[in-house]
Amino acid sequence: MNKDTRFLIIGLGLMGGSYAYALSKRGYHVSAIDINSDAISYAKKHDIIEEGAVFDESLIRHADVVFFGLYPNTMVEWIQAKRQHFKKGCLISDVSGVKCSIVERCQALLKTDPVEFIASHPMAGKEVSGVAYANDDMFRQANFIITPTDANTPEAISFLKKFAQELEFANISILTPQKHDEMIGYVSQLTHAIAISLMNANDNPDLVKYTGDSFRDLTRIAKINENLWTELFFLNKQNLIQEIEDFENALNTVKQTLVHEDGEQLKELMIRSTKRRKYFDKPKQS
Amino acid sequence: MNKDTRFLIIGLGLMGGSYAYALSKRGYHVSAIDINSDAISYAKKHDIIEEGAVFDESLIRHADVVFFGLYPNTMVEWIQAKRQHFKKGCLISDVSGVKCSIVERCQALLKTDPVEFIASHPMAGKEVSGVAYANDDMFRQANFIITPTDANTPEAISFLKKFAQELEFANISILTPQKHDEMIGYVSQLTHAIAISLMNANDNPDLVKYTGDSFRDLTRIAKINENLWTELFFLNKQNLIQEIEDFENALNTVKQTLVHEDGEQLKELMIRSTKRRKYFDKPKQS
Repeated sequence: MNKDTRFLIIGLGLMGGSYAYALSKRGYHVSAIDINSDAISYAKKHDIIEEGAVFDESLIRHADVVFFGLYPNTMVEWIQAKRQHFKKGCLISDVSGVKCSIVERCQALLKTDPVEFIASHPMAGKEVSGVAYANDDMFRQANFIITPTDANTPEAISFLKKFAQELEFANISILTPQKHDEMIGYVSQLTHAIAISLMNANDNPDLVKYTGDSFRDLTRIAKINENLWTELFFLNKQNLIQEIEDFENALNTVKQTLVHEDGEQLKELMIRSTKRRKYFDKPKQS
Repeated sequence: MNKDTRFLIIGLGLMGGSYAYALSKRGYHVSAIDINSDAISYAKKHDIIEEGAVFDESLIRHADVVFFGLYPNTMVEWIQAKRQHFKKGCLISDVSGVKCSIVERCQALLKTDPVEFIASHPMAGKEVSGVAYANDDMFRQANFIITPTDANTPEAISFLKKFAQELEFANISILTPQKHDEMIGYVSQLTHAIAISLMNANDNPDLVKYTGDSFRDLTRIAKINENLWTELFFLNKQNLIQEIEDFENALNTVKQTLVHEDGEQLKELMIRSTKRRKYFDKPKQS
């Protein structure tokens, strides 16, 4: 990537802020737009951005690359309202955790404009929010997924790969929006639905005295931003319902081994889960 | 506890070995019995025990306090076969993860002997096994639960409390075997059943490229010792089936909000899980 490239981050929360932080640290020009003027002031004061505003057309007009750090539906509305300000030839991407329901709408909105929207998903995060927690450590163990469509160019894909390499993501993958959403329905959304349900299945706060690490690990993500995650769940509803049902079947299989006292079958299920889980311990591919 | 107290550990695996390690480090006399002579040799060589054998009546005859580190059913069989060797007045405890199905059987077997069996459960562990991994760090964040019955004396309860304090457990609690098994059905066995099912619900190993920390955290315990855990699940079958069904209902509630597009209800479920999970972040009680 060229150090003269001008990046604009729209939505300076944890993810947008961390992109800004990582890019500024590496010597790129970064500006930001956020409805919260305190976030802008903080980011300027801490050299996370060069410039920023609650809204400023000229920041948009001068940006070569735009990353949206907004909630998915808010991003679509923003593009609908402000798309006339993008610079000719600019590249636009996002950080959204769902793709099918977003990518087509954004590309349709921008199809007559001389700009390119290509979606991507940095699979990183923390249980905190806001630019004050911006950091680039979280990218080093994380996956970066690019989800191009027929509307995208090889150059845009190539640019996002270089961007992810520059930010030191551990893995960079290319998936269709459909495959992305199926995968995310399982590895992310189902796990959150489970954690919420596990936490809600028992209302005895005295249990805290008796919990071990396994319970804490399983419920860590039960602390959840209800506005963002309700939006993400609904935008990927069909996949998530399917994943919940596959999981319900797997859990029922365990339950039936207890009901029918089938120890051999229960051991088989444990041997299978142990074997599969070992894949996930391997050193990550690069 | 008196430094002249002679401890005997029967079953020198991770838990038994860690008890031996922690006690020896604090200057107590510790011996061990294990069917694996390599475990005994290792423990002697590393000063984890003073003496040990595959079997030795005199070690049993001289022990003031005996801790069983065996699988639950194996412990019951061991007591049945060897109970005549225990020293008069000796105190016997265990490390089992289930209580109702074990405590009564052990106390019934020993009721005519001048010894006291009082059950306890150190809620600590690792994903490894064997005395070579013995350590006492894992006790410092852990709960120690004593599950006395009417057959137990205040002196025995008091002794186990002092033992747990000496080993620096973070919390010491007293529960009936019934309450213990209900609690463990939820915070430990249900979480393992979920992790196994989540891992078995999808057989695509390519997913490793796309997983984030939340999936890894939820499935860490899907690597499981099938012999031990099948035994633990079956010994607490009724509680575990009930906990699975309560969880199934909670998960179905989430699913129904998706099916019926009830965003307000889904947000409520997330707000509730967030609020409940926060209890579990508090500094532990001592």
